[in-house]
Amino acid sequence: MSLPAFDDGPRPTLATFGESMLRYSPPAGERLETADELAVHVGGAESNVAVAAARLGCEAAWLSKLPDSALARRVERGIREHGVEPIVARGSGRVGTYYLDAAGEPRGTSVLYDREDAAIRTATPDELAVDRVRSADAFYTSGITPALSETLAETTAALLRAAGEAGTARAFDLNYRSKLWTPAEAAARLRPLFEHIDVLIVAERDAERVLDREGEARTIAHSLAVEHDCETVVVTRGDAGAVAAHDGEIHECGALETDTVDPVGTGDAFVGGLLAGLLADGSVPEALDAATATAALKRTVAGDAAVVTPEEVAAVIEGGADGIDR
Amino acid sequence: MSLPAFDDGPRPTLATFGESMLRYSPPAGERLETADELAVHVGGAESNVAVAAARLGCEAAWLSKLPDSALARRVERGIREHGVEPIVARGSGRVGTYYLDAAGEPRGTSVLYDREDAAIRTATPDELAVDRVRSADAFYTSGITPALSETLAETTAALLRAAGEAGTARAFDLNYRSKLWTPAEAAARLRPLFEHIDVLIVAERDAERVLDREGEARTIAHSLAVEHDCETVVVTRGDAGAVAAHDGEIHECGALETDTVDPVGTGDAFVGGLLAGLLADGSVPEALDAATATAALKRTVAGDAAVVTPEEVAAVIEGGADGIDR
Amino acid sequence: MSLPAFDDGPRPTLATFGESMLRYSPPAGERLETADELAVHVGGAESNVAVAAARLGCEAAWLSKLPDSALARRVERGIREHGVEPIVARGSGRVGTYYLDAAGEPRGTSVLYDREDAAIRTATPDELAVDRVRSADAFYTSGITPALSETLAETTAALLRAAGEAGTARAFDLNYRSKLWTPAEAAARLRPLFEHIDVLIVAERDAERVLDREGEARTIAHSLAVEHDCETVVVTRGDAGAVAAHDGEIHECGALETDTVDPVGTGDAFVGGLLAGLLADGSVPEALDAATATAALKRTVAGDAAVVTPEEVAAVIEGGADGIDR
Amino acid sequence: MSLPAFDDGPRPTLATFGESMLRYSPPAGERLETADELAVHVGGAESNVAVAAARLGCEAAWLSKLPDSALARRVERGIREHGVEPIVARGSGRVGTYYLDAAGEPRGTSVLYDREDAAIRTATPDELAVDRVRSADAFYTSGITPALSETLAETTAALLRAAGEAGTARAFDLNYRSKLWTPAEAAARLRPLFEHIDVLIVAERDAERVLDREGEARTIAHSLAVEHDCETVVVTRGDAGAVAAHDGEIHECGALETDTVDPVGTGDAFVGGLLAGLLADGSVPEALDAATATAALKRTVAGDAAVVTPEEVAAVIEGGADGIDR
Amino acid sequence: MSLPAFDDGPRPTLATFGESMLRYSPPAGERLETADELAVHVGGAESNVAVAAARLGCEAAWLSKLPDSALARRVERGIREHGVEPIVARGSGRVGTYYLDAAGEPRGTSVLYDREDAAIRTATPDELAVDRVRSADAFYTSGITPALSETLAETTAALLRAAGEAGTARAFDLNYRSKLWTPAEAAARLRPLFEHIDVLIVAERDAERVLDREGEARTIAHSLAVEHDCETVVVTRGDAGAVAAHDGEIHECGALETDTVDPVGTGDAFVGGLLAGLLADGSVPEALDAATATAALKRTVAGDAAVVTPEEVAAVIEGGADGIDR
Amino acid sequence: MSLPAFDDGPRPTLATFGESMLRYSPPAGERLETADELAVHVGGAESNVAVAAARLGCEAAWLSKLPDSALARRVERGIREHGVEPIVARGSGRVGTYYLDAAGEPRGTSVLYDREDAAIRTATPDELAVDRVRSADAFYTSGITPALSETLAETTAALLRAAGEAGTARAFDLNYRSKLWTPAEAAARLRPLFEHIDVLIVAERDAERVLDREGEARTIAHSLAVEHDCETVVVTRGDAGAVAAHDGEIHECGALETDTVDPVGTGDAFVGGLLAGLLADGSVPEALDAATATAALKRTVAGDAAVVTPEEVAAVIEGGADGIDR
Repeated sequence: MSLPAFDDGPRPTLATFGESMLRYSPPAGERLETADELAVHVGGAESNVAVAAARLGCEAAWLSKLPDSALARRVERGIREHGVEPIVARGSGRVGTYYLDAAGEPRGTSVLYDREDAAIRTATPDELAVDRVRSADAFYTSGITPALSETLAETTAALLRAAGEAGTARAFDLNYRSKLWTPAEAAARLRPLFEHIDVLIVAERDAERVLDREGEARTIAHSLAVEHDCETVVVTRGDAGAVAAHDGEIHECGALETDTVDPVGTGDAFVGGLLAGLLADGSVPEALDAATATAALKRTVAGDAAVVTPEEVAAVIEGGADGIDR
Repeated sequence: MSLPAFDDGPRPTLATFGESMLRYSPPAGERLETADELAVHVGGAESNVAVAAARLGCEAAWLSKLPDSALARRVERGIREHGVEPIVARGSGRVGTYYLDAAGEPRGTSVLYDREDAAIRTATPDELAVDRVRSADAFYTSGITPALSETLAETTAALLRAAGEAGTARAFDLNYRSKLWTPAEAAARLRPLFEHIDVLIVAERDAERVLDREGEARTIAHSLAVEHDCETVVVTRGDAGAVAAHDGEIHECGALETDTVDPVGTGDAFVGGLLAGLLADGSVPEALDAATATAALKRTVAGDAAVVTPEEVAAVIEGGADGIDR
Repeated sequence: MSLPAFDDGPRPTLATFGESMLRYSPPAGERLETADELAVHVGGAESNVAVAAARLGCEAAWLSKLPDSALARRVERGIREHGVEPIVARGSGRVGTYYLDAAGEPRGTSVLYDREDAAIRTATPDELAVDRVRSADAFYTSGITPALSETLAETTAALLRAAGEAGTARAFDLNYRSKLWTPAEAAARLRPLFEHIDVLIVAERDAERVLDREGEARTIAHSLAVEHDCETVVVTRGDAGAVAAHDGEIHECGALETDTVDPVGTGDAFVGGLLAGLLADGSVPEALDAATATAALKRTVAGDAAVVTPEEVAAVIEGGADGIDR
Repeated sequence: MSLPAFDDGPRPTLATFGESMLRYSPPAGERLETADELAVHVGGAESNVAVAAARLGCEAAWLSKLPDSALARRVERGIREHGVEPIVARGSGRVGTYYLDAAGEPRGTSVLYDREDAAIRTATPDELAVDRVRSADAFYTSGITPALSETLAETTAALLRAAGEAGTARAFDLNYRSKLWTPAEAAARLRPLFEHIDVLIVAERDAERVLDREGEARTIAHSLAVEHDCETVVVTRGDAGAVAAHDGEIHECGALETDTVDPVGTGDAFVGGLLAGLLADGSVPEALDAATATAALKRTVAGDAAVVTPEEVAAVIEGGADGIDR
Repeated sequence: MSLPAFDDGPRPTLATFGESMLRYSPPAGERLETADELAVHVGGAESNVAVAAARLGCEAAWLSKLPDSALARRVERGIREHGVEPIVARGSGRVGTYYLDAAGEPRGTSVLYDREDAAIRTATPDELAVDRVRSADAFYTSGITPALSETLAETTAALLRAAGEAGTARAFDLNYRSKLWTPAEAAARLRPLFEHIDVLIVAERDAERVLDREGEARTIAHSLAVEHDCETVVVTRGDAGAVAAHDGEIHECGALETDTVDPVGTGDAFVGGLLAGLLADGSVPEALDAATATAALKRTVAGDAAVVTPEEVAAVIEGGADGIDR
Repeated sequence: MSLPAFDDGPRPTLATFGESMLRYSPPAGERLETADELAVHVGGAESNVAVAAARLGCEAAWLSKLPDSALARRVERGIREHGVEPIVARGSGRVGTYYLDAAGEPRGTSVLYDREDAAIRTATPDELAVDRVRSADAFYTSGITPALSETLAETTAALLRAAGEAGTARAFDLNYRSKLWTPAEAAARLRPLFEHIDVLIVAERDAERVLDREGEARTIAHSLAVEHDCETVVVTRGDAGAVAAHDGEIHECGALETDTVDPVGTGDAFVGGLLAGLLADGSVPEALDAATATAALKRTVAGDAAVVTPEEVAAVIEGGADGIDR
């Protein structure tokens, strides 16, 4: 059976930690520079992953830090509405925002960050619901979080350690963002975390520019798994699918063709599907299938969140749509 | 000349009978589950066919049954605005609604019906303007109508009989809907109607699953025409065009490439174009051309209605657009 | 201090039970009959009350029954996003909908229900999370619920009994709806429930037409409290404020002037504020103040939900806005 | 009974003649000068009157002349959707448009015409469906039509004569527009028409500035009726109601308070209600009541069209809304 | 004549200096916390004043500092589109934003600033087009600018000095913002500027809380004029109008009743109208009339900008709207 | 370096002359005939070119003639907001409008002009800011302008002569519009202008149908350059790129693949990029690259204006987007 038994038994639990931002995007075809109206979404790698996993059957919580304001409540609403519990420390600082200037060829989609001085940048473990990390089946964060401040790099490490001590599986997406730091800075801050990671997800391109890996994706996955003693390493390759190294074996899967409405959040949907699959005791190939299908479905939906159902994921795994279903 | 003389002489008359629903659809990229706004359209196979035929020159009326409410008036407005006369019996029951969750690959477009207990389900011939069926040049209904209730199956049969007795040409689209009944149920209720049909339209896939036909479309068309003594049988094949059996001959036509905005109503636009062509005394190949062009144009327009003009249909038959016309 | 200490200590818990519907409303100035776009909100007396109470500091859950569909998920999202936990039994039946045709004088606002055969109509106690009723500090439902079906009348009674046995305070708003039943029908089904109610809320006009009360509101409140042995009876009088009978005393409060954007949900916001006030151990006058302020604030917000903060309620109690706050 | 029996027997028939325009209006609070989006409505005195009368039970047709274009079809759709039959001569010329720059105090609502060279300006009786004027129970046009061109002044006179010869009742609203002509020009062209008019409607202010009348409205109404041998003269006074002289008697009625969404079309709704009332054999006071209620309801609806029902008109006559009807 | 000769001769020139922000506001009736869409406007006291003055005939330039980004270009576009020339220094830092949570009674309109670390906070005179200040007929800035940073307080003083040396008239609106600083802080930083001001505008309430003035507005105006040797001091009183002390005389004017769409920017429109009036060599009463009318008109328009014409201002001064102008 | 030094030194100046219109377009998927809402843009070949050039670093002015109305101000705002100075003569006549009925295959995009009697049709040189033409580095107009009236043909010739005498480079796009005139009429009026043109741009198809050219684009370009003594002749070929004849050499460039949102204005963006490149002293191949990139970017933006930045143009020249830039 292709989709693991998401619906049976007590739901597996997932905790994630990171920044979620207000995302502002002009109407289709408009630009930031001329827009008189902006659509509001909420997005951040870690809440996106939580949303995708929750929709596929996990009980997910998102830890973060925000000020006490209407904008902060807007962020929480945008996470809660998808069935994820926001567990938010309060403190001074801004609500991070980002602007999406979306376009096809040759302009391409571009992101403008306005996330300086976000409240989360000063978050320390004692402010956060670390017990929820400890009690969860899995904990997830990404390379964006330590990029935001030195404090956050330390907090990330502390949470990974706490998770490890409690037996919580630790998943981590390298998620390099060139607008936040250089590859060298990223490598320096992220490498020390690798020993705490059970499931590492990394884009092939990031493996190359941040981790100085070369060669085939399967080789990269395998060598990362061995070198950092990771249970599972998944190297994602965009249109070319993904490769997983697990238990000495390599698993590959292709990507699906999509009529893309909004590409933002594709990678997070992939990770959410992957974790949901693994947490449901799916095999790595099963989890990769769930990841791939969730990512593909995400692209048909506006906003960062993977608004999908387990039935839809299963249907895509089994072959996708054919005409209008009526 | 490719487009029959739609504009000359007294306009041919068409009566159709069936349910039309309020159609609710989220903005592009949104989903039903998260939409805060729904676009309202009006659609139903039989009114869609009437609209397409009316826009191509027929004088069309749509018979139905609705409650006396603002929602019912919304339905009538959505038909009247396109130049079709709604002739509506009043009675208790709901206004049928359906939701359109549209997406491209791999999600696909899906329809969610909320049409239980629609007023039309109890419609009997004595409530309906059967005289308009008798006086029309052609009468059209589809396999959706008898699917809605046993009463409607009987009413459909009665209207087809009345049309036959009055010399009104009878057109019928099998239009199987898997969310309404099983193929076996459909076959049982629809087969008895076939002897009353002059022009039968059936999708190749429905011919296979409902009518248990196999083999090439041309064979299916021919055998259905012979078996049920239909003047014309058109087997539609989606992207692969259509095949018509008429008077012992087979006519084929291809489908057109389209930049599709909304695929819903394509088949009805095809039938509307076909009937308009036939009623204008066009040959079967001419009518197939009009059908194909109308269907292709429909796909560029949001909503169920084929908002086209005879000039546009003629232009498409003659080769379509080239750059911006200015 | 006028606003009870909503933020301190463990949050009081509230459980409510009832139907929530999709609410469709045309843009301002448009009518259902001509609208090409409908705004979607989620509303129902019992979830509205839960939302208002949750926003003022309670931990609120809403019990109901819905089918397994995108529309049902839309309803749940509309409740969850405001911080209320939806606890939903699954079953066949529709998702209730209602249409709002809003206008000022002389047309007035009118509601068109399309809620026949909603899944909740068959809800029985064994399907519902009765333990959440038992463990809550308070339980709330309204006279709309028993109006929907005989089964629901029985279920309502059973839940009130369960609450009573568990020591959960029981609040009930009579909420007569003339489009659902006659005053006589309502009286017959609702009167047997009164013995199970601790806090009864009833509009003056409903007291007159359903309960055959006459005279001044204070007299009505007092006599209802005595007759049914209710701890608190609140008679609401629209623009004229409200009167509460509690412990032999009468408390009165006025209504506030508002620039009304959307009046729907005003009464539910009142009840939510009242319950939040009482559950925070506020006095009846304090609770009435919170109720009045919450109701007034609700009217400035589109949709059924009282999107307010404790700070805003406190500010209104203390005197309201003066110019632009910047 | 206050509302005449609109629903019984064969529906009375009304024909109107005049220009209808595309109306473009910016979103609320925006101005033409900065708007990036315009709402489209269709409006013109004579089609507005036809719509109001049709909605109150008349069978109404609107005669006009338009080019053969998508904009012309947009106009026809905007009339047909409200249940009025457009009977349109084709010819060269533009589709008239007007822009609405709506505001409250102190800016006020202003209209910008862009209606030069509209196709209707050359309309002659031989192009028009004069038989529909002859066969109708009533014919209506307004002082705007002769203002548009000399040809139209002659055509208007010819249609009024044809109506008179056929025994069709002739109604005429003076409808002075200062942006089209001066009072003196209006008087010169309109006075010769007065002998052909059975029901004359004139705003008090227009009676003063165009017809040089002075004194009380009742005196003006009476003297106009006598002088021009009109069966009925109605002098409208905005917020102050209206006065009718009929058969030597004076009837007065007040205006209703309204929460106005869009004032455009109020006068036309009044006339439509008046004619519907008179055509249903209502007395003059009954017709005035229907006129007043229809006009008041119109103001709650965006656009020129009076989207009302007979039931709503009756409800307003009987006293209007009280709370939310649910 | 009430409106000075705005159109004649070379246009007077005005330079202003200050921060303009992106303003985000939810649709009417929505709240920041739930909005899925935000309207974008551009606003800031000094660019608002420039816009109002430019629309009334001045040649206006707005000096500021912004980063080099799409958001900065959005700000500039929002000023340029109203005919004001933006002269912008480039530098690091954010684009200030603010959120408008608009409501009527009892909630009131509230502003949420997100303007920390705006690029302008580091603006020094050598970065700015001080020659444009020197060559202008008048220079305007407000008390908001020095509130933003110490650097800006110094820059403001320097610009006022430069203007004074060049003979440019200096206008200043105290514009106290309680979300930026305390009255004591404001007083300390603003008082030293007063000796450089020719035209001082101050709200009565700010005169009280920041400048510790008491008594009648006329007394306050007079004493401020005398004490600080200002040519003109205008004390604004909201609904109660304004009082000006000039040349030893007191001039008073009332405010106008308005149907308010958006109150933000009213004060700036007042100042823009005042300066346009004075620069056109109008008398102080004439300038007050222009100020009052411009402010009233502004309230009928969404956004910070006073989208008005000289003709509209003149019409309001002469008595305002009466019915629909058509 | 591929993009000429747009940012250095004094900005080159460009003056253009022509009609700009209000452009009304229905929402995606809607049609003019059914649209209830129209998006407003401003467009015209000559202002479009000015906008593109201004955005790439030129100081651009657009000369035209408009009435004194809110619609005229809307046009000016739509040009000014993109950084182009509108220099507008006032006079009677309409503001030209056009409607865009956009669609993909097989319907295609179609334009409906409503530009009769636009004020510009009577524009004479003495009304226009000819000094701005004389002082500019380059002057641009197109074949649309002389198509509008005989007066404009003469004015165009006069402006080209004035430019030539002043040493201003003269650029001209033939821009044949079949809805304005026949090829023969165009040829007759345009040919006499060719002797005054330094840079001629012509679509290959227009060269064929208007100028009776045949053969390869390079041959056409070369022969036109020789025959009319043009410094540069660019023949554009849509998807097939462009060919330039300059100084006896032929330069070719391909077109770029684009995800097209709005094709209108592509040609004008090309010309704007070309002129900006040439005015920045770029070589012809560099200018062609800038033209091609600007045109391709334009297609990703709704509206006639090329909302691009020099950086984006440079990025496209260097290879375009790759994934999301974040």
